[in-house]
Amino acid sequence: METSQIAEMLGLPVRSHKPRRTGITHVLDKGLGMKAVDDLVETGSSYIDILKLGWGTSLVTPILREKIRRYQERGVAVCLGGTLLEVFISRNRFDEYVGWVRELGLTHVEVSDGVITLPHEEKLSYIRRLSKDFTVLSEIGSKDDRVIMPPYKWIEMAIAELEAGAWKLVGEARESGTAGIYRQSGEVRSGLIDEVVTKVGPENWIFEAPQKSQQVWFIRRFGPEVNLGNIATSEVLPLETLRLGLRADTLMPGHPPASGE
Amino acid sequence: METSQIAEMLGLPVRSHKPRRTGITHVLDKGLGMKAVDDLVETGSSYIDILKLGWGTSLVTPILREKIRRYQERGVAVCLGGTLLEVFISRNRFDEYVGWVRELGLTHVEVSDGVITLPHEEKLSYIRRLSKDFTVLSEIGSKDDRVIMPPYKWIEMAIAELEAGAWKLVGEARESGTAGIYRQSGEVRSGLIDEVVTKVGPENWIFEAPQKSQQVWFIRRFGPEVNLGNIATSEVLPLETLRLGLRADTLMPGHPPASGE
Amino acid sequence: METSQIAEMLGLPVRSHKPRRTGITHVLDKGLGMKAVDDLVETGSSYIDILKLGWGTSLVTPILREKIRRYQERGVAVCLGGTLLEVFISRNRFDEYVGWVRELGLTHVEVSDGVITLPHEEKLSYIRRLSKDFTVLSEIGSKDDRVIMPPYKWIEMAIAELEAGAWKLVGEARESGTAGIYRQSGEVRSGLIDEVVTKVGPENWIFEAPQKSQQVWFIRRFGPEVNLGNIATSEVLPLETLRLGLRADTLMPGHPPASGE
Repeated sequence: METSQIAEMLGLPVRSHKPRRTGITHVLDKGLGMKAVDDLVETGSSYIDILKLGWGTSLVTPILREKIRRYQERGVAVCLGGTLLEVFISRNRFDEYVGWVRELGLTHVEVSDGVITLPHEEKLSYIRRLSKDFTVLSEIGSKDDRVIMPPYKWIEMAIAELEAGAWKLVGEARESGTAGIYRQSGEVRSGLIDEVVTKVGPENWIFEAPQKSQQVWFIRRFGPEVNLGNIATSEVLPLETLRLGLRADTLMPGHPPASGE
Repeated sequence: METSQIAEMLGLPVRSHKPRRTGITHVLDKGLGMKAVDDLVETGSSYIDILKLGWGTSLVTPILREKIRRYQERGVAVCLGGTLLEVFISRNRFDEYVGWVRELGLTHVEVSDGVITLPHEEKLSYIRRLSKDFTVLSEIGSKDDRVIMPPYKWIEMAIAELEAGAWKLVGEARESGTAGIYRQSGEVRSGLIDEVVTKVGPENWIFEAPQKSQQVWFIRRFGPEVNLGNIATSEVLPLETLRLGLRADTLMPGHPPASGE
Repeated sequence: METSQIAEMLGLPVRSHKPRRTGITHVLDKGLGMKAVDDLVETGSSYIDILKLGWGTSLVTPILREKIRRYQERGVAVCLGGTLLEVFISRNRFDEYVGWVRELGLTHVEVSDGVITLPHEEKLSYIRRLSKDFTVLSEIGSKDDRVIMPPYKWIEMAIAELEAGAWKLVGEARESGTAGIYRQSGEVRSGLIDEVVTKVGPENWIFEAPQKSQQVWFIRRFGPEVNLGNIATSEVLPLETLRLGLRADTLMPGHPPASGE
């Protein structure tokens, strides 16, 4: 019996296929070597939509071009971390960034203002320029866990960034899951999320959710096809089981035994 | 000098060899690729007795059969996570589960009721049926950290499940080490353990112990040959050093310098 | 554009090259297999100065000699964990330890008294003997998080151990980062560090810093060329980005945009 037949027999949720607009899994690579990359694409390439080379790791990765090629060959889009673009911007080197990203053959870019202070009009201008040539992920929220931005501000920024050409908005969390859309404890700022999605639907967002409890919260709230980001490379298959109700946390409330079966 | 000679010279505890009935290390694979599997068996196959493909990860693992074969070739028994059986049971597909496990060539199965509510008599009937064809690991304890089961109940279930044919009982902990035999903080429910083992000896149990402090607790309490489960793949060698008194935590109280040497 | 050109264009800090006396990264291997070792040296060999086979893992690693050879071929010095020497010492087997380390072809050794009680004069005598044949890393601080040693004692020991021939002093932290130079919470004992470095400059120390927040603290305090130890194998590239100001935590205060660019 093939696993696809079993999934059908068990009535598991049907997941979308690539290229996806929902159900996106966005993964954080913070320095894998090529053998680990091979393992990741061999086990996870059908689940991973976007691979982010975290913050500025691309600048210290000797195998950078080989790694990008391997991911792309296996249908995984690659982008660099938004923080790196912020470093370039802080040195007035935006054009050089664009040139380098193009030379690397990337199709996706992330724009963020998680670290530097950037007038929103300037951020929008970057999104406008980049969206002509790239698929733009536009990140909202600070990496400083002391910065609490009110919901109306999230909504304003989100609407403007989508209009400027962003493909998806990314809700900031850091690698640790303790800033942006989360409290310092890692707990979801659920009031924020609830308010934001009434104006800008969840399909427009990739919610960064590095911690399992965070992934569970979003899947319970928005279903298996919610877009999730900053997933650790070791958590790709575990996340897929959470989406499908094959792990305790989402099996419990989401998939009670059908009485008729 | 070979490491075996050194171990003898240092008077390290002598560990049992495979197939083991005590000193068992039971490891959780939550999605390794084949290169990582190769690394794991190359470094750890003499230490790992049982490898569990956690919860429902087997259904989303493209390299499932290849992975099972590699482990088994290296003398590591493979079983699927108990939660997956619970998913099948909740859909009234127990027979299909047995058929699939047999087709995969597995020798071990795990039976649990950590998520679904299962009358104990029904759990026992599954153990009885499975123990005819498989080595049965029978897991006791809830995955819900709010469920606190009193010791007498653990003892009753343990005795009945051994009588029904379970080879070993597994003390639940989750991947995180925060439910079942642990408090939410990860601290061992030591009163529970102490009471339970007076009736059902420790050799009958595989204590899930994903956190180092938990492994240390059990090794100090029951010695280097205690059976431990849900060990992360990266912790196999570190656990072996804890068993042998080669790490600070178990070197301190367990192996003071022999004054005569 | 090559990454080295980009680093220059962005005005990133210039890092020293091997063999380094400052800017040292000292990494903890607690049981990697050969494929992971290959990944590590392929991505990180120019950043990693010393690789420690943690505590007594060397005695349970089947691929020990192959692993040592691979690291050394790639210019990474290897040493065994100090705890293992303590095990040998506690059995009166110091000479056998030296013989074995020589036979393994190691160039570096770590001397510590993190677990056993060792008169300081005896520790100094080991350092004196070992420093004739090896580069000695001398570790100060207890692995027992209840042991708080006052600053003057750290300074006394540090000076004496350098005089005895230690190449660098190692500030104890354990794998968890919760003892020695840290509080149980993982917070740096900053008063201790500040006082110690006035007498024994930071270039003489390798500060163990397994947690990111600890690495950030030391880089902010002493700059990108601080020596850091017990770095997890998965954190080698992330640490390098912290040193260079390519991650939020050290980009913020350390590298404001140059107004003239």
